[in-house]
Amino acid sequence: MESWSWPPRFAEDYRPSPDEHFWFRRRETMPAGDRDAAILERVREVMRYCWDKAPFYRRKWSEAGVHPDGIRSLEDFERVPVVRKDELRRAQAEHPPFGDYACVEPSEVGHIHGTSGTTGRPTAFGISRGDWRVIANEHARVMWGMGIRPTDMVFIGSFFSLYMGSWGALIGAERLGARAFPFGAGAPGQTRRAVVWLRELRPTVFYGTPSYALHVAETASELGIDVGEFGLRILFFSGEPGASIPSIRGKIERLYGGRVFDSGSMAEISPWMNLGESSAHVGMLCWQDIVYTEVCDPSTFARVPYGGEGTPVYTSLERLSQPMVRLVSGDLTRWEAGPSPCGRTYPYLPKGIYGRIDEMFTVRGENVYPSAIDEVVSALPGYGGEHRILITRAEAMDELTVQIEFDGATRAAGDDAVEALRRRAEGDLRAVLGVGARVVPVAPGTLERTEFKARRVLDDRDLWAKARR
Amino acid sequence: MESWSWPPRFAEDYRPSPDEHFWFRRRETMPAGDRDAAILERVREVMRYCWDKAPFYRRKWSEAGVHPDGIRSLEDFERVPVVRKDELRRAQAEHPPFGDYACVEPSEVGHIHGTSGTTGRPTAFGISRGDWRVIANEHARVMWGMGIRPTDMVFIGSFFSLYMGSWGALIGAERLGARAFPFGAGAPGQTRRAVVWLRELRPTVFYGTPSYALHVAETASELGIDVGEFGLRILFFSGEPGASIPSIRGKIERLYGGRVFDSGSMAEISPWMNLGESSAHVGMLCWQDIVYTEVCDPSTFARVPYGGEGTPVYTSLERLSQPMVRLVSGDLTRWEAGPSPCGRTYPYLPKGIYGRIDEMFTVRGENVYPSAIDEVVSALPGYGGEHRILITRAEAMDELTVQIEFDGATRAAGDDAVEALRRRAEGDLRAVLGVGARVVPVAPGTLERTEFKARRVLDDRDLWAKARR
Repeated sequence: MESWSWPPRFAEDYRPSPDEHFWFRRRETMPAGDRDAAILERVREVMRYCWDKAPFYRRKWSEAGVHPDGIRSLEDFERVPVVRKDELRRAQAEHPPFGDYACVEPSEVGHIHGTSGTTGRPTAFGISRGDWRVIANEHARVMWGMGIRPTDMVFIGSFFSLYMGSWGALIGAERLGARAFPFGAGAPGQTRRAVVWLRELRPTVFYGTPSYALHVAETASELGIDVGEFGLRILFFSGEPGASIPSIRGKIERLYGGRVFDSGSMAEISPWMNLGESSAHVGMLCWQDIVYTEVCDPSTFARVPYGGEGTPVYTSLERLSQPMVRLVSGDLTRWEAGPSPCGRTYPYLPKGIYGRIDEMFTVRGENVYPSAIDEVVSALPGYGGEHRILITRAEAMDELTVQIEFDGATRAAGDDAVEALRRRAEGDLRAVLGVGARVVPVAPGTLERTEFKARRVLDDRDLWAKARR
Repeated sequence: MESWSWPPRFAEDYRPSPDEHFWFRRRETMPAGDRDAAILERVREVMRYCWDKAPFYRRKWSEAGVHPDGIRSLEDFERVPVVRKDELRRAQAEHPPFGDYACVEPSEVGHIHGTSGTTGRPTAFGISRGDWRVIANEHARVMWGMGIRPTDMVFIGSFFSLYMGSWGALIGAERLGARAFPFGAGAPGQTRRAVVWLRELRPTVFYGTPSYALHVAETASELGIDVGEFGLRILFFSGEPGASIPSIRGKIERLYGGRVFDSGSMAEISPWMNLGESSAHVGMLCWQDIVYTEVCDPSTFARVPYGGEGTPVYTSLERLSQPMVRLVSGDLTRWEAGPSPCGRTYPYLPKGIYGRIDEMFTVRGENVYPSAIDEVVSALPGYGGEHRILITRAEAMDELTVQIEFDGATRAAGDDAVEALRRRAEGDLRAVLGVGARVVPVAPGTLERTEFKARRVLDDRDLWAKARR
């Protein structure tokens, strides 16, 4: 049973027949204009709900002279002030534990998650029991779009804690009717055990981060096991950009012999899989009837035209607890108008999420995104699987250095091969970045592997400036 | 709505009023004789089901000359051959992935868990969707018996992976209508984050292992935080015996200011909380209508009389996927006839699970259980929170050595205080064990802390024998 309303209604016993391409045919294939009209209606309903329930929004919008009744077009909606993550943190500090943007009573909260809190005060997510089911239903739907079916066994290789990615994949798999294998990750020795279980149980679907899939493959290789034998049909990812970077995607597909699908958005938004690739593989679709995504100019927060680059701004259309209205992601992407060849009429992100507004750094006047370096480096023949980006300043001159680990075959081939890799890397980087980088090849196994989001950039210029003072 | 039948039926919308003492009043308070008569009926139904569905049981019972129709009393049932864990492992190796004791088709399996597989081939648990709900309903019921209510927030501080403990606590909390905070454990830095979140969110209930609760308290103390301020009302545990050891229970209750409840059984059995303490605190009750527990002589597997010591043998009465019929735990306990003062008519285990048949070791002819040493040592004034048990053999003479960490206050008090601790420990150990132990005091922080099941025994006699050969 398909419906689209505010508040959302789901029939928990509904599931399409396995040969059905769409989960909700009408919602996924409706003409973009019709959908936009419906989104406008939803947006107004959500805003009225937030106005009634959340002092946070009422205060914020009043100060900006905005009222739900004044929103008569999606262009009007672009003038609604955006929400930033630090506002959520502040609201929680002032109104613990869930902030005054929470729209349900604490007693309605069924699940608590949050940000990792490695820097600063963590943000808690108080998710109502109803919204937990909303999230499950929507993730099932997006996973269906990747081709996951009830006959699949879904191995979840990510840490189960505050991080919503693991939980969303789990409850989505449950709702879809697949077999869920919530293996987790993160404890010492867990990756070796993952290899054993992947080989023994032969799940058909893998979820995790791209870094972790590569780490599993390396660990298996050390054990003399080829991950290609696991028989994985689909590997879907979130948490870092890798799955949309062609060289990384290609490497994972070659190693595992399965198809790679990217998904994501933000934990605050959950269902975070509101961006998710379909079998057409044109990039992540913006499932606009779940979360309305606007790719916006990072200074004005007005939508950029299709074809343009900007930062996604998200609005929950089906969340009753802590709905987000125009939450700025700070990510960087480019969008295109739909339809996608899979038949869904959503806009899509052909290169996925490929950076952060605040991750971009400037070297000698050129804007450089770490993801662009990742892409070049990962595509190099002889690349050993890890690299680091160092930005330093000698006197007034920025210097960009990329340490690149070469692989065992390159080492065996000798110094000339290493030198060839270095020259090739410097040439490719200059061509893509428009600025020169010094490449330093390093031996296999030198650089530490990450099990979670890859952190590869070290900007040393501030340190240098401080030391000189 | 209360019912008790095979196959089990649960009304998912049922929940007692918060002031109701029992979840299922009739099942929990029925006269023991009436319950035994009903258990006999259930056992016969389960056996017939297993006979029809599982070649494993049909083969095993045929070889032993046993048939479900021949079971006319609970005494007859004692002659049904027991199942050992290695048989399950072997059945899975021969009939992958779930073994020929699985009673449902792989397509009915909704969740996959298993043993950790740190030694030998891991055992997978293929849990059907229906059984997942059975487990949730039964854990909710046992947690209700501890006094957990929908107004509680349940912090789950254990690793989410194969281990069923974390998942059972989670789905039990969800079913009970409490707020679930599945924080997890096991990743580097996770315990410090746990302290921050416990302080910020103020959950009212904690689940984990006793070792981990003590580790959290130590970590908090290092950060200058007193766990007594968290406001935890209830701490419930499984996974190791500590919560039933008075000195450890007392220490946790003093530190946290909440009540401690022990629970458990085996992951293979899940609902593993079929042993669970109630507010009466007489020991873990055997919730016999969920899993029929027989405390048996470890050689004949006949029940020992109430008051006697033996090993629990478990029979699932409400599981349709991989039901266990007379699974030997290998644990060690003593049982008493009910009723418990809480009004439940179940038998109970006054000292909990306090050892393993195979963990017991013999020193100079005396049987010694590590748990007995744990209990003595933890009760010592000046005990620093960790210890190790070493068994060595010099020529033909066994020697038992206990390394005991003393605390900071004892260190500050000087050598005489350390020597007094040593003498007191040797005296107390001799009195309880009936055999002398050499005590070696070690400085605070010397011994490694464990986050999971404490492993404190090192039996070095085989090494010594080998070295001599």
